[in-house]
Amino acid sequence: MASILPASNTSMRSDRNTYVGKSFVHVKNPYLDSMDEDVLYHLDLGTKTHNLPEMFGDVKFVCVGGSPNRMKAFALFMHKELRLADSEEDIKDICAGADRYCMYKIGPVLSISHGMGIPAISIMLHELIKLLYHARSSDVPIIRIGTSGGIGIAPGSVVITDEAVDSFFKPRFEQAILDNIVNRRTELDKELAEELFNCSKEISTFPTVIGHTMCTYDFYEGQGRLDEALCSFSREKGLDYLKRAYNAGIRNIEMESTVFAAMCRLCGLKAAVVCVTLLNRLECDQINSPHDVLVEYQKRPQLRISKFIKQRLGLCDQTS
Amino acid sequence: MASILPASNTSMRSDRNTYVGKSFVHVKNPYLDSMDEDVLYHLDLGTKTHNLPEMFGDVKFVCVGGSPNRMKAFALFMHKELRLADSEEDIKDICAGADRYCMYKIGPVLSISHGMGIPAISIMLHELIKLLYHARSSDVPIIRIGTSGGIGIAPGSVVITDEAVDSFFKPRFEQAILDNIVNRRTELDKELAEELFNCSKEISTFPTVIGHTMCTYDFYEGQGRLDEALCSFSREKGLDYLKRAYNAGIRNIEMESTVFAAMCRLCGLKAAVVCVTLLNRLECDQINSPHDVLVEYQKRPQLRISKFIKQRLGLCDQTS
Repeated sequence: MASILPASNTSMRSDRNTYVGKSFVHVKNPYLDSMDEDVLYHLDLGTKTHNLPEMFGDVKFVCVGGSPNRMKAFALFMHKELRLADSEEDIKDICAGADRYCMYKIGPVLSISHGMGIPAISIMLHELIKLLYHARSSDVPIIRIGTSGGIGIAPGSVVITDEAVDSFFKPRFEQAILDNIVNRRTELDKELAEELFNCSKEISTFPTVIGHTMCTYDFYEGQGRLDEALCSFSREKGLDYLKRAYNAGIRNIEMESTVFAAMCRLCGLKAAVVCVTLLNRLECDQINSPHDVLVEYQKRPQLRISKFIKQRLGLCDQTS
Repeated sequence: MASILPASNTSMRSDRNTYVGKSFVHVKNPYLDSMDEDVLYHLDLGTKTHNLPEMFGDVKFVCVGGSPNRMKAFALFMHKELRLADSEEDIKDICAGADRYCMYKIGPVLSISHGMGIPAISIMLHELIKLLYHARSSDVPIIRIGTSGGIGIAPGSVVITDEAVDSFFKPRFEQAILDNIVNRRTELDKELAEELFNCSKEISTFPTVIGHTMCTYDFYEGQGRLDEALCSFSREKGLDYLKRAYNAGIRNIEMESTVFAAMCRLCGLKAAVVCVTLLNRLECDQINSPHDVLVEYQKRPQLRISKFIKQRLGLCDQTS
């Protein structure tokens, strides 16, 4: 099967990170360019089956989040906010064939789900970064819009992450490469975090803080809950752990931020994590707020990101 | 809000693991029984909002797998195989409200998706085990029906796991509990594996083996692929790792089996992992077989499990 990419594609790849004034998404894999075809299996896309530059070359913002329905809702929300001419019905899940992630494109905005946990988001990120690379995308910030458990802050607060830390409160991601463990750094982009924070100043109905985010490998034993199937520690020990986390500057807990920060850093993507907190873990373990309250909470980071995108696109009027 | 559970529920719980002849699903959490309500947040179920014993007390088989569509297809397949009287349209996703997992009940069979990776399946298992506990289920085998990368065996082969191992080929699952790491054992149930293997003897159209399954935290760097966004090792080193895995008795690689084995062992659930291999990793990295071939591969473990369930229920005739 012949490639549908232009003949100049290979030569463009080799030096494109050096173009003046543009920050291209790059991969760190010497083998990739020699592959005849790159199948992005879990996204149901590929370099021979799809014209990725044509489909995704104009992407200027990537937003990711765990839940497929939430990322669809965000896509529909952005469609409305950007006042695009095409119909809502035209917004289709680009990855439906693979049944692993969902992806929607709304003008220059890509909205993608990543499932729960480090492994799930890591697969999506490998394939998304290759997608942006093949599409020759440049200057693309990537923002994780998530839900989380808060520590010492009111439920419904939004946390913008400055640094993702692991279960030991360390700013690192331990990546297993074959049978070796490599530590990777997990700072998020400082300027982007501040830009997002300043956007939110005008939206005063709910509190927003900048703080550390702890990323764990599970929701129950790793986060000090007492309502799991297996619990081997006391209430006091669990609470002590959460208080130590608070004292270390951690304001919320989720399950994807370390690998997200590490991979985006290495591939030249300016990244941010913006999560709403669904409960205060110093007070309870279970998420049992009414459904409509939780739905409203989950819209809060979306409002913020929408404002940011519109500002960058010069679409904000004085009153919005 | 008053509990809809019978008044005898609490007293039943305390000694139910001692009933003669029945192996009840148990939790290892001294706090659980003192909770007024247990919200199974990611399953969209709870002890106050649902009558779990009535809904799930008759469950006799639990089958889990990564992809929501695959587990729906399995539910529809089992509905046909068990010749149940109710209509196909009655098979609804019980967890649709949470948008994280899907769950279908087909007579005594529960079919649930678990997403990709250890964290995602771990959340589902905590809530599923509590569900089976609250429902007072007994003698319930749980089978993971998955896809995987094979090592040294033909694509389309089915691997029944005897032992799940980590990236270092060790039969253990390292669970982070607060800021401690605890090692848990990862053997699968030997008798169940043999029963499933013997079921498959009569289905001679594709090979089935019993072997070790390696469980990694990601699909790319952790599995020695060369087609990821970040690759820091040579082709030779990656291949050497896979060959060492083969020599250690590993026949396939996936991303959930260690935590699945560890948690089921601790909670008295007899567990099996039955995965089809989509490619031979000693030959290639990318899954690029035609779609219809991959679809047929994915039906193979389902055929085997269906045969096993029908045999246990005494529904197999001589010729089937």
